[in-house]
Amino acid sequence: MFDTTVSHTTGNDTTTEIETEIRKIIDARAARSGAYGVHFLELCDLAAAQLNGGKLLRPRLLMGAFDALTTERTVTAATRSVALEIAAAVEILHFAFLLHDDIIDEDLLRRGRPNLVGHLAGKTSSAKQTAMEQGISDARRLHWARSSGILVGDLMLTIAHQAFARARVSEEYRLRLLDLLDATVTETLAGEYCDVGLADGCITPDLELVLNMTRMKTAAYTFELPLRVASIICGSDHRLEQQLGSVGRHLGLAFQLQDDLLSAFGQSETHGKDPYSDFREGKETALIAYARMTHAWPSIEQLIGAEEFSEESGRRIQNLLIECGAQQFVESMVQDQIRAALSMLSAHDGVVPTAVSQFILTFVDALDGRRA
Amino acid sequence: MFDTTVSHTTGNDTTTEIETEIRKIIDARAARSGAYGVHFLELCDLAAAQLNGGKLLRPRLLMGAFDALTTERTVTAATRSVALEIAAAVEILHFAFLLHDDIIDEDLLRRGRPNLVGHLAGKTSSAKQTAMEQGISDARRLHWARSSGILVGDLMLTIAHQAFARARVSEEYRLRLLDLLDATVTETLAGEYCDVGLADGCITPDLELVLNMTRMKTAAYTFELPLRVASIICGSDHRLEQQLGSVGRHLGLAFQLQDDLLSAFGQSETHGKDPYSDFREGKETALIAYARMTHAWPSIEQLIGAEEFSEESGRRIQNLLIECGAQQFVESMVQDQIRAALSMLSAHDGVVPTAVSQFILTFVDALDGRRA
Repeated sequence: MFDTTVSHTTGNDTTTEIETEIRKIIDARAARSGAYGVHFLELCDLAAAQLNGGKLLRPRLLMGAFDALTTERTVTAATRSVALEIAAAVEILHFAFLLHDDIIDEDLLRRGRPNLVGHLAGKTSSAKQTAMEQGISDARRLHWARSSGILVGDLMLTIAHQAFARARVSEEYRLRLLDLLDATVTETLAGEYCDVGLADGCITPDLELVLNMTRMKTAAYTFELPLRVASIICGSDHRLEQQLGSVGRHLGLAFQLQDDLLSAFGQSETHGKDPYSDFREGKETALIAYARMTHAWPSIEQLIGAEEFSEESGRRIQNLLIECGAQQFVESMVQDQIRAALSMLSAHDGVVPTAVSQFILTFVDALDGRRA
Repeated sequence: MFDTTVSHTTGNDTTTEIETEIRKIIDARAARSGAYGVHFLELCDLAAAQLNGGKLLRPRLLMGAFDALTTERTVTAATRSVALEIAAAVEILHFAFLLHDDIIDEDLLRRGRPNLVGHLAGKTSSAKQTAMEQGISDARRLHWARSSGILVGDLMLTIAHQAFARARVSEEYRLRLLDLLDATVTETLAGEYCDVGLADGCITPDLELVLNMTRMKTAAYTFELPLRVASIICGSDHRLEQQLGSVGRHLGLAFQLQDDLLSAFGQSETHGKDPYSDFREGKETALIAYARMTHAWPSIEQLIGAEEFSEESGRRIQNLLIECGAQQFVESMVQDQIRAALSMLSAHDGVVPTAVSQFILTFVDALDGRRA
């Protein structure tokens, strides 16, 4: 690694840099995986291919914030290289969460394409070939595919932790990064636990709980983590890190609520999931939690998560969610959260540098209404 | 932490020290988990209770080796305290593997008692209470319990990595510990992947592959990891670390093969699993891989993993495995592996100190024929 001082690098293609960094981490690992047999190597290759398709929302946010934070001062190439490594690790952490989330939700698709489990259950690999030759039942093949998803998720969680643990920064910063990773992972798992408890009817739903779950499950690692990592690595004080963390929490909640709106009302071609899958699975979103408190609930309750779920049921639920005000409530919550973030970013207290505010505003504008 | 020099402490009750250390790690976390809601706190408490029941094989091996390695020199209390923290982390890592292993195997029991999933699916908790009040089906409750097992496994994997990442040793040693953890976790996951692929018929079995799987899945983290961690923390040279690692691999394979023998031929009261569960699930053990190459295979194949599996089928498979020589083959492999370990331990090349050899021999003697 070069230790020369570099100036701000917004001119670089950050996305390419992130992709290269992820590939570097995965390739180094694939080289070692051969020692564990051909089947495991094949699994690692498949995981690498699946990891490749993402929009890199989190690492792009991290690197954009890092570069904006360092416009007015210079950082060494070594420091920026640490930021890139952690940005790649954050994407790999995201992949770990997606893998286990898809297992829990029993999803075989992600962004409209077969996910890792769907791929293993449905496509030909040497292991699959063996299964077909031996006339293995679909149920056993699916069990094998799902088990593989659990194990690959564990591997990705390990890779992400290893990157944070090895970050070449001072011990103080390394411990701050590790604390942040710990809090973020715990919060995400707690959010996911709450989500599945609600969906399975094992936790009693109410609007506050559902909003907390939404914040914990996505906002923490999608927006707060990247912004705080960027602050720590470039040496910002605690006050700026905290402020950017709060901005991230507001934006993260807005992002997830927007995602819920898209799943409920958007075109499946846009959001890449089965149409009405949230309704079919009985997912407890803020939309549903709000609707529970209205006159429309008895009608929605009959339809949602029902054994026989038709497209007609889906359209009927959409109309009921609009009529009862749930859609409007969630839409205005999205706006509230964005407004809260913007007011923190544009406060004239000098905490958040202008370049950083501008980057975040541009980033959010580009996201608006799209699923990442 | 005190930084005074202490002499060798075999007189202490190491088991109590390890239990205290595990409790310290879990309690610190439980204190923070309250922030994520009452349901998550309850889940963490349950996980802590489940973690409590183990025989602490791995951390006891680690601390025993550490204390034996430091009989002839003095180490600081701070160094021994690092060893204890990592010993606790190794037990927590083991718990993470067990949790995901039980999900994959669809087991609800561990050591004859309900495991975490079995507990959540079957016992009363506030979340479960809600489910019962709402008349939630058993299938949804089981889905919730299994999802919780995946998430708690992730949390335990995180805790183990955090402990290694924060080990208060020199940077050189910390990186050696992290390299070792990385290799061990990857090897264990590769072994588990191979195991499930074999059990589901998605990977073609042969004896060599099955023995490799057995070594990867258990030997690496059960014996090699604790012995190498002890060497690294007390500052041994690479040669001793390598030698103890090899001893660990041999003992680990012997231990797992012995475990397979116990599952197949032992009393279920002793080994704490459903009797014949390996046969019922069609597990690909060295016993089965050997039997495949004999005249007994067609008869065994009809019985093993069959839809209708009776106690009679179990007894019949036992007899066939004895008749065809599989039992004897695996028993002599166990002896071979133990002999190889012993010859390394008693070699007069001065690599392994006598106190360490003696400790390991005593430890293995106490294990012999018992499931840990």
